[in-house]
Amino acid sequence: MFTQDEELLSQLISSDPQRILLKRRAIAKTITLFESTLKDHRKRADHLLQKMLPLVGKSLRIGISGVPGVGKSTLIESFGLYLIEKGFKVAVLAIDPSSTISGGSILGDKTRMEKLTVNEHAFIRPSPSSGNLGGVAEKTREAIVVLEAAGFDVIIIETVGVGQSEIAVSKMTDIFVLLQLPNAGDDLQAIKKGVMEVADLVVINKSDIDLNAATRALAQIKSSLRIFGYQGNPHHQLHHQDVWHPEVMCLSALDENQIGSFWEVILRFQKLQTSNGGFQRRRSHQSLAWLDDQINQGLKELFKNHPEVKERYLRYQSEVQAGVVDPSVAARNLLDIFKHE
Amino acid sequence: MFTQDEELLSQLISSDPQRILLKRRAIAKTITLFESTLKDHRKRADHLLQKMLPLVGKSLRIGISGVPGVGKSTLIESFGLYLIEKGFKVAVLAIDPSSTISGGSILGDKTRMEKLTVNEHAFIRPSPSSGNLGGVAEKTREAIVVLEAAGFDVIIIETVGVGQSEIAVSKMTDIFVLLQLPNAGDDLQAIKKGVMEVADLVVINKSDIDLNAATRALAQIKSSLRIFGYQGNPHHQLHHQDVWHPEVMCLSALDENQIGSFWEVILRFQKLQTSNGGFQRRRSHQSLAWLDDQINQGLKELFKNHPEVKERYLRYQSEVQAGVVDPSVAARNLLDIFKHE
Repeated sequence: MFTQDEELLSQLISSDPQRILLKRRAIAKTITLFESTLKDHRKRADHLLQKMLPLVGKSLRIGISGVPGVGKSTLIESFGLYLIEKGFKVAVLAIDPSSTISGGSILGDKTRMEKLTVNEHAFIRPSPSSGNLGGVAEKTREAIVVLEAAGFDVIIIETVGVGQSEIAVSKMTDIFVLLQLPNAGDDLQAIKKGVMEVADLVVINKSDIDLNAATRALAQIKSSLRIFGYQGNPHHQLHHQDVWHPEVMCLSALDENQIGSFWEVILRFQKLQTSNGGFQRRRSHQSLAWLDDQINQGLKELFKNHPEVKERYLRYQSEVQAGVVDPSVAARNLLDIFKHE
Repeated sequence: MFTQDEELLSQLISSDPQRILLKRRAIAKTITLFESTLKDHRKRADHLLQKMLPLVGKSLRIGISGVPGVGKSTLIESFGLYLIEKGFKVAVLAIDPSSTISGGSILGDKTRMEKLTVNEHAFIRPSPSSGNLGGVAEKTREAIVVLEAAGFDVIIIETVGVGQSEIAVSKMTDIFVLLQLPNAGDDLQAIKKGVMEVADLVVINKSDIDLNAATRALAQIKSSLRIFGYQGNPHHQLHHQDVWHPEVMCLSALDENQIGSFWEVILRFQKLQTSNGGFQRRRSHQSLAWLDDQINQGLKELFKNHPEVKERYLRYQSEVQAGVVDPSVAARNLLDIFKHE
C-alpha cells in the first residue's frame, strides 16, 4: 500500500477529537477516491477496502425511502439530531439515479438538512451522480464501508421512490424503512414496485395532517403485509415470536416524542435480529448477492466491449428486429464469437 | 441442411389433409429435436429454425395464466373447441418449471382436456420438463416457432401462477390473459408478483359461483389497473382511444356464450394492436429482449463453467461470507481471471 493511503487510513479511523477536521477530510477524500474511475485509483481503493474490512460491521445501516414529498429530509434531520443527542455519530448517504440526468440530487441541496449538515457528529454525502443505478449503488455501498471504518454508529441511506433504487438500498441495509403518505391506496404503488415486500418498517408520515386517513392507511397496509407474509417465511425454523414481522406506524416527523418511538421500534428490530442471528445472516446474504450482481454486471460489460461482438451484435439486433434471424440463434452465435476470442 | 431435416420440414408445413398424421408426427419430432441438448441436434435445430422463420408471424399467441384451481384447463378446452368450430387450428403449449421437480406437469395429464386432445385440428404439448425456467422458456418459445411454421392459427401458452413463469410467458405472447378467482383481494398476489402489470386482459373465472363476489373483484381489479395505468404509458404519442387499456371481465368457462364474449375481446385487442402497429412492435421488442436474455444467461454459464473461475469463485464465496474479502473486490478479481484466460 502507498504511504499516502496508509496516512489517509490512519486519519480516517482516528478518534482523536483534536483531529476531527482532518478525519472528515480523510473520509471525503477516500470516498472521492472510491468514486474515481481511473484504474490506478481503483487499485488503491481496493487495497483500502480490504484494510477497512476488519473495522466494519459495528454500525446500524438504515435505509429510508419514499416518494418525493413524503418528508424524508425532515425525518432524517430530526432523527439524526435525536441520535446525536443520544451520543451517536450519524452519517447520511443517498442513492439517486436521477441525479445523473437532472444534475441535481437529493441531499444535494444541503439546506434541506440545515442543522444536521453543520453538526460535527454528522457526515452527509450526496448521491454519486455518475453512471447508471448499478454504478451509483456500487459507490454508495463502498462509502458505507468507509463510514463504518471511520466509526459512525448509524448510517442512513436515503433514496427516492422509483422502485429499483429502493431495492438496491434494501440490499445494503440492516433495516429498510418505507415512508408512505397518509393516503389509503398509496400502498398499491409500493406493492407493485416490490418495495412493500422488502420493507421491515412502514411509516405513515405526516399523519398529523389527517389522522383519520392515516389510520385507514395503517389498517390497509397492515392487511397487505399480512397477505404477503402468508407465503414463504424464510425463517420457518424459528418460532413466530422470534421472527421480525414488518410493522406499520403513524408518525409526524416534527414531533420529537414520535421520533423517540421510531427509534424504539428500530432498536426492537435490532435486538431481535441480533438474538435470532438474522442480523449477521442478512449481511452475509447481502454480500454474496452483491458478489453475484457485480459479476453479472461485469460480464455484460466485457461482452459489450468485445470489439468483434460489438460490431456483430448491432447487425444481429437489426436482423432480429427485421425477423430475418431468430434471437436464440443470434445469441448462440454471438456467444460463440465471444468464447473464441 | 441434412436431407432428413428437409423432409421433416416439408412434412411439417404440408397442408395436404391426407398427410395430417405425418404432419403431426413431424411437429412432435421437430419439437423433440429442439428440446435435445446434444450439440449436433442443436445445430440441426438452429438450421431448421432459420428455415422456418419466413413462415412465422401469422398466428395469434395467447398466454393464459392463473393459480392452480382457477380453471385454466377447463377454459382452454372450451375455448379451443370453440375456435376449432370457427375453423381455426389450435395449439396448446405449457410452461411449468415445477414439472422438473414434481415429475408431473400441467397438461401432462391430458385427460383434463379430453375432447381437445383427440381433436385433429388441435395439437397439445406438455411443458418441457428439463432444466430451469430459462431452459423451459427457451424450448417453449422455439416450439411456438415450429407450430407457427406448421400453420396453427392460435397458439395458447398455459402457465401456473408462480410469478416468474408468467412473466416469461408474457414475453412471448401477443396477448397475456390473467385468470383470477372471484375473491376480492386475490389481486394483491398478482400485483405483488408483477403479473397484473403485464396483463392485457384479466378474467374473473368461475364467476357463476358467487356473482356478488365476482362483481366486487371486478371493481377492485379495475381500480388497481387504473392506478397502474397512471404512470408511464409507453404509447403516449397515440390518442387514448388508439391504445389498448387492460380490460377486466367476468366469465364462466362452462357457458359457451361467454366463451364467445372472451374471443370477441381478444379479437378487439388484435384489431386495435394491428391498426396501431402495437402487434408488430411488441413482437419485435420481444425478440430483442429475448436476444439479450439469452446472451446474459449464456454469459453466466460461460463464467460458471470456466475451470479456474469455478474453483476461485467457491473460495471467494466463503471468504466473502466470512467477511474477509469485500464482495466488490472479489468480483473484480474473478472477472480479471475470466478475462485473461
